[in-house]
Amino acid sequence: MSQEHKIYKPKPISGFPEWLPEYRAIELQWMDKLRAVFESYGFCSIETPSVEEVDALLAKGGDTEKEIYTLHRLQADAHEDKEARLALHFDLTVPLARYVAQHYNDLVFPFKRYQIQKSWRGERPQKGRFREFYQCDIDVINLDNLPLHFDAELPAVLFEAYQALHIPPVELHISNRKIVVGYLQGLGVKDVSFVTRELDKLDKLGVEKVTKILADSFGGNSALAKRCIDIVQTKWIEEAFTMLQNHPPSSLNQPSLEFNNLPILGPRANDLCMQGIAELKFVIANLSHLPKGSVIANPGIIRGLDYYTGTVVEVRFKGKPMAIGGGGRYDDLAGSFINQKLPGIGVSIGLTRLFSMLLDDGYIKPGPKSPTQILVVLPEEARRGEAATTANTLRNRGYNVELFHSDSKLKRQLAYAERKGIPYVWFPPFKDGQPHEVKNMLSGKQIHADPEKWAMKGTSR
Amino acid sequence: MSQEHKIYKPKPISGFPEWLPEYRAIELQWMDKLRAVFESYGFCSIETPSVEEVDALLAKGGDTEKEIYTLHRLQADAHEDKEARLALHFDLTVPLARYVAQHYNDLVFPFKRYQIQKSWRGERPQKGRFREFYQCDIDVINLDNLPLHFDAELPAVLFEAYQALHIPPVELHISNRKIVVGYLQGLGVKDVSFVTRELDKLDKLGVEKVTKILADSFGGNSALAKRCIDIVQTKWIEEAFTMLQNHPPSSLNQPSLEFNNLPILGPRANDLCMQGIAELKFVIANLSHLPKGSVIANPGIIRGLDYYTGTVVEVRFKGKPMAIGGGGRYDDLAGSFINQKLPGIGVSIGLTRLFSMLLDDGYIKPGPKSPTQILVVLPEEARRGEAATTANTLRNRGYNVELFHSDSKLKRQLAYAERKGIPYVWFPPFKDGQPHEVKNMLSGKQIHADPEKWAMKGTSR
Repeated sequence: MSQEHKIYKPKPISGFPEWLPEYRAIELQWMDKLRAVFESYGFCSIETPSVEEVDALLAKGGDTEKEIYTLHRLQADAHEDKEARLALHFDLTVPLARYVAQHYNDLVFPFKRYQIQKSWRGERPQKGRFREFYQCDIDVINLDNLPLHFDAELPAVLFEAYQALHIPPVELHISNRKIVVGYLQGLGVKDVSFVTRELDKLDKLGVEKVTKILADSFGGNSALAKRCIDIVQTKWIEEAFTMLQNHPPSSLNQPSLEFNNLPILGPRANDLCMQGIAELKFVIANLSHLPKGSVIANPGIIRGLDYYTGTVVEVRFKGKPMAIGGGGRYDDLAGSFINQKLPGIGVSIGLTRLFSMLLDDGYIKPGPKSPTQILVVLPEEARRGEAATTANTLRNRGYNVELFHSDSKLKRQLAYAERKGIPYVWFPPFKDGQPHEVKNMLSGKQIHADPEKWAMKGTSR
Repeated sequence: MSQEHKIYKPKPISGFPEWLPEYRAIELQWMDKLRAVFESYGFCSIETPSVEEVDALLAKGGDTEKEIYTLHRLQADAHEDKEARLALHFDLTVPLARYVAQHYNDLVFPFKRYQIQKSWRGERPQKGRFREFYQCDIDVINLDNLPLHFDAELPAVLFEAYQALHIPPVELHISNRKIVVGYLQGLGVKDVSFVTRELDKLDKLGVEKVTKILADSFGGNSALAKRCIDIVQTKWIEEAFTMLQNHPPSSLNQPSLEFNNLPILGPRANDLCMQGIAELKFVIANLSHLPKGSVIANPGIIRGLDYYTGTVVEVRFKGKPMAIGGGGRYDDLAGSFINQKLPGIGVSIGLTRLFSMLLDDGYIKPGPKSPTQILVVLPEEARRGEAATTANTLRNRGYNVELFHSDSKLKRQLAYAERKGIPYVWFPPFKDGQPHEVKNMLSGKQIHADPEKWAMKGTSR
């Protein structure tokens, strides 16, 4: 062992998670399952570079600006200065908008894509905050007009995706931005963006605090502040739906004036608000095939991002307040890149956050440390040829097979299988004329077996 | 359309490739195939963060230093200065060494892992040079000692991986660093590293130029320079193998003196060189199951990286000089991180480079623009329920199914399937009592079909 050189002792980098093989195996399974669900609905895979030009990332503005990681060459030289500044993307939505604008002529619309990729945010290091994380996004983008049916399809796919992960049950909280925005306009609120942002903090700050912030911003008008908070309560929405009973989707854009009878809305309900309620009702109705109680019309769902213009959805564990996924409709996300209206709707799973949370909870159990299904033992060096042939035979039949690398004591070879969680150990003949045998490491049962015919129990391969 | 705001016209960023969906589908297929091959030999998946601390990346030194991309927050603040500097990794080998050192107590050795992940190098933008690219690496790392059998197993897995991609046939060029290093030591060469680096440039610079460079460095001794070049010619190695006929692996460390009879080596062949020849012979012999002519003992294979200490392998398209993959054995890669000898051997496929090269050659044909296998048409809005049920039935049977989003003219719905390359279009009943029908878009044949029973031809689902 060389002791001469300096040893750089490695340690974890805060916010940049990495897993041991037995947990990485589960993360990989999750991605496979998500991909299968997304593809089963016709979403294609794309991948964008990890970087965008800083100007492209800033085109959409927002609070994320200060968290952007820019790239610099360790030894910068002249040619770097002439080039555009590059930065790691902080989500997959801005890159999608850029991708669609750039490849506009080569895509078939409606363009349905999924993207399972890392994003980066230079947040302060803090428990549970990730600076590198996987997002799993699906979006549909169309030219000029995107049918409202997609507003129901995407949450349904999202719900199925969570179900496929076999995690605790989730529920979809759905609203429509038009409801709150239209209502606030109706109330005569001037800075609607400011009020929606504050309403979005209700869960965190509580009713009292938000009411005070709003009242202060209204010059002390706490009655108005209270009215603002009324709209994000869930209790009135079902009543509104009932009033819309006789409105088929075709009349969505001409909502009836009967809304004015709803106490909460009253004469203040403008067209935008009523359209939002009608759209939400339509979306909820089109999700009726999901399990009872798993879809909740919740006007309190705002979603922070400014670009949402219609349906907004949030995924939560049943009965828990925290969002573990979500998304919404945006009417003009690609608009900063191309002079063509490209409305879309997208939903996203914060995979790393979810995975890490369930890992910390002990909900996720480790998988095997190795994908090997069968370890072929090496009886002695002289029999390596036969052992290798056995391993090849089993591998060609579709199994994951490892040949033990040296003719160690049998006990050591079995211990290796045990420690790596390999479920079967195969014994090629130890002497001429002996049969092959295979041992189930879980049950301990050992039987004679033919490498050409033996079938592993409980595998679908 | 909003024309008010400034439009940021997106353009490709040199060196950061992205593919259209029909090519991304193929790239994804490639990764699936590589993963299946790697797992079939018992390699587990790991993923390391995209970043390492700069000090960790520099611990191994090398020429890549100036190409390292460091990260900075766009709006840096005080807390950043206190943290370690982060940089994107430039390969997957240094991160592996760090990973093994860091998780040493939680891993089972020999540790066999694969890693399919992006790396970054801040190279000058130039055609065919990538600044972001996928590498696919497999490595085995063991405590203290790694059996020589792995030196044959990893090239074999690598060969099978290339075969799985259905690309033009490749050949493995294999050597052992000990041969050249030992020989040069025997010649009395002082700066062996310098000479091997120059010998590695033979393909690029030609014999004449390299001879001159070496002769100059030897104070004009061109006879010595010529002798250096002799060793990297292929012609003598088979003769050397024949002389080793009677050396079983167990005598690898006591090579016979009969080597001295080889004209090229003569009395200058030191023990290290002879050991290299014996190891190479062993590796080649253990690859005899590969197709004839696909394994070549080639002492001209050097591989640039300084950390290789034994077997080195390079993959080339049959008869072509350019490397499309390779790797080798390293005895002390983790040594900068931990005070424990951790020898390993690893091989790597430069996936992005290979993919892009075959794309440019026109060898890779585009896949479908969508994973959808069946498009269910929407006869009319009133029949959406039945169409949706049909789509769900087919999807639950394992097919990738899309329901057309609006009751457009049938011609438009078929055109959508055509443009996305969807192979089957499903017609739910257009009137009560009518049967379902399905159309094969390739053959044009349309038949009656039951969504509960119909089976797609040529799919293994």
